[in-house]
Amino acid sequence: MKKIVLAASLSLLATGLQADDIKPEKAIEYRQSVYNVMGWHFKTMGAMVKGEMPFNKEVFAKKAEIVAFMSPLPGEGFIKGTSSKEVPESKAKAILWEKMDDVKAKSQDSQKETKALAEIAKAGDEKAIKEQFGKTAKTCKACHDDYREE
Amino acid sequence: MKKIVLAASLSLLATGLQADDIKPEKAIEYRQSVYNVMGWHFKTMGAMVKGEMPFNKEVFAKKAEIVAFMSPLPGEGFIKGTSSKEVPESKAKAILWEKMDDVKAKSQDSQKETKALAEIAKAGDEKAIKEQFGKTAKTCKACHDDYREE
Repeated sequence: MKKIVLAASLSLLATGLQADDIKPEKAIEYRQSVYNVMGWHFKTMGAMVKGEMPFNKEVFAKKAEIVAFMSPLPGEGFIKGTSSKEVPESKAKAILWEKMDDVKAKSQDSQKETKALAEIAKAGDEKAIKEQFGKTAKTCKACHDDYREE
Repeated sequence: MKKIVLAASLSLLATGLQADDIKPEKAIEYRQSVYNVMGWHFKTMGAMVKGEMPFNKEVFAKKAEIVAFMSPLPGEGFIKGTSSKEVPESKAKAILWEKMDDVKAKSQDSQKETKALAEIAKAGDEKAIKEQFGKTAKTCKACHDDYREE
């Protein structure tokens, strides 16, 4: 039996798994993949908000739902030994692991706002959607500013 | 305004977007990221099914839900000009774009089985879960066998 254990310590790890024998590169690839998918959809929403493409409420709402669903997922990729100091592919500053309470708070904040965006997008008021999009983007940026390498 | 248009032609493109000015590399990165995230969770489910790690119903159900939710997402990354013939990073055989009806059918099949897996996992019967896991894995393999480069 592989030496894989369940870690209940971090509420960030929404799906509850920690693995002693997961390769750091795999965990980094996982979390970066989650952010890539979220970014892909968020970018299109941003283009609609900025008027760079037609505003399509149905598509916007679907994309907001995807981003909201995925926002808790990156957590389990942040296993120890995966900072940019330790692995070149990583964009996560080592300080992230020292400020875990703040990271969790910022993650919760982002999850809350993406969820609100999905709900508001479903309701369909374009002005409210655009306001909430900006509010949501700020919660992404808050974490990037402090914990992501440029 | 950017030259981005809505494409309604492919039901595969579940979230409805096609973009003339999306870089092929970005579309490939997007769909590979979706598969990476699904693969990450599917792998842990597989380890539980094979007895390589303790079977945790709650974690399994959450992961099955993630895979089911994400299974329609790769579609919009399969824009034209992104086969392995055209872009070295691509793992998608050029024939995929010639057999779109079959690709769509296989994708629908996979979405159906991942959804069933999520429902069965939630119900919690371990034997039924394991059976449905095997059934689901087969639908992933069906597409890989025909359309993914080794």
